[in-house]
Amino acid sequence: MTRGSMSPARDAAARTALAAALAAGGAVLAAGGTALDAVAATIVVLEDDAQFNAGAGAVFTAEGTNELDAAVMEGTTRRAGAVAGVTRTKNPVLLARAVMEATPHVMLAGTGADAFALTTGLEQVSADYFRTHERWQQYLALRDRPGAASFDSGVHYGTVGAVARDLCGGLAAGTSTGGLTGKRWGRIGDSAVIGGGTYADDRACAVSATGSGEYFIRVAAAHEIAARVRLLGETVQAAADFVVKRELQPMGGDGGVIVVGAHGETGWSFNTPGLYRGALTAGAEPFTAIYGDER
Amino acid sequence: MTRGSMSPARDAAARTALAAALAAGGAVLAAGGTALDAVAATIVVLEDDAQFNAGAGAVFTAEGTNELDAAVMEGTTRRAGAVAGVTRTKNPVLLARAVMEATPHVMLAGTGADAFALTTGLEQVSADYFRTHERWQQYLALRDRPGAASFDSGVHYGTVGAVARDLCGGLAAGTSTGGLTGKRWGRIGDSAVIGGGTYADDRACAVSATGSGEYFIRVAAAHEIAARVRLLGETVQAAADFVVKRELQPMGGDGGVIVVGAHGETGWSFNTPGLYRGALTAGAEPFTAIYGDER
Repeated sequence: MTRGSMSPARDAAARTALAAALAAGGAVLAAGGTALDAVAATIVVLEDDAQFNAGAGAVFTAEGTNELDAAVMEGTTRRAGAVAGVTRTKNPVLLARAVMEATPHVMLAGTGADAFALTTGLEQVSADYFRTHERWQQYLALRDRPGAASFDSGVHYGTVGAVARDLCGGLAAGTSTGGLTGKRWGRIGDSAVIGGGTYADDRACAVSATGSGEYFIRVAAAHEIAARVRLLGETVQAAADFVVKRELQPMGGDGGVIVVGAHGETGWSFNTPGLYRGALTAGAEPFTAIYGDER
Repeated sequence: MTRGSMSPARDAAARTALAAALAAGGAVLAAGGTALDAVAATIVVLEDDAQFNAGAGAVFTAEGTNELDAAVMEGTTRRAGAVAGVTRTKNPVLLARAVMEATPHVMLAGTGADAFALTTGLEQVSADYFRTHERWQQYLALRDRPGAASFDSGVHYGTVGAVARDLCGGLAAGTSTGGLTGKRWGRIGDSAVIGGGTYADDRACAVSATGSGEYFIRVAAAHEIAARVRLLGETVQAAADFVVKRELQPMGGDGGVIVVGAHGETGWSFNTPGLYRGALTAGAEPFTAIYGDER
């Protein structure tokens, strides 16, 4: 994700998608909607856009299937919902929300989660809905290479996520992903792990992460950022930077996080060359960026 | 788990099992073994004992099957492994360890995790290995009741876990469970969620939790205890008490945690009437207890 590695058309398409996602979430908030509604609306746009590794356009498992992970959390009550390895729901982020709102559970996985989906009324799709030519080619290329299923930060577009603060001060976070190309054995990454790749606590901040998920789980990265803000009084930017650069990076963890704090302050931090990102604050112009040197 | 609600025979059997588990882990440590080896040896004893809801004697899902969750983490490198919804491995804790040691992943679930198990050489068993008459009766009773799959702290014996510190100062934690009677939709509880029910960090402490798992996930309870020790300098006992009584309890979360700190200090905290527990320290007599008033 460096300048020159992306065509102008791809660069422009990514920015257009980010702007559309921001606009969807922003419209919810401007109308007085909740942070959770805004996060869901934002992520649905990104799931539906085949440029990103979530929903349509998800990467393929070792078996050539798509297994989707997603989570949401809202910070006022710290309720949360997550799904892992689902294969039939068009928008996994909405299924994660349904777990939160319609069950006593936080995390459902696999065929059981697919069965739960049938009770929700959420749109179900055939397996080929998620498939794109480009992802299939990536799968074929990886299948013929040893050492499959490692995180490759050179692959341009990954997990999607959103964080938001609403007019009442409520925070929410959400994350959705197809995981790793060539993943197998029912691997679950950090996106669906509350505390790993997704966390929200109104006392601190809301966090969504993308990257080499195993490291984010081991560090409990999203929760660690919230803990530093809450227990140490760090700013969301300082906490995000510390966790990405001082906790994850020394272990070998690559990726980034987006954060919004209890007072609406936004931040992000990443140790990859770039991170698809955007921010929208009431009264300000939307901001979108790809490369590390954009401010 | 109050005095009088357990028969003398059951009380004695539980204490005998706890002592055997402590002895297994203690023998590993006395011989210079690692904390991770000790945790695994301890949990294997408890998984193999049908009194506990882990391995043999696991509770039944809504479909009348056993789906087992387990995790391990070692605190020096913060490597971790977890499995969820596995159905064929005699000792799920050893499968979690194999995820940590033999894959680039942290968390595997469902049929994929069962498939991984076949590559490990770990003992595989038929589904009826896990079945006990008492658990089946509990399942039948719950099946005929509405509101299934809620955590019932009146059910005497649940999740098992262990934490240890070795002669080199390394910490480790592990947890294993059959989850909730009547669980469905591939529900994953906190035991298999790194940061929720299991966490270890040599800079702070090792933690294993049992209880109403959804709350432990939402609080990231195991990681929160470690964060308070590491970031605030709290003792492991103070951190455990705070998280159980000030974070989990106000939300409605029932259960408890066991903790060992970087200097070998042990602690536990619970808001249930009792917690099966034990401790073994070099040069001291083993201690086991069930009810809240035992010290």
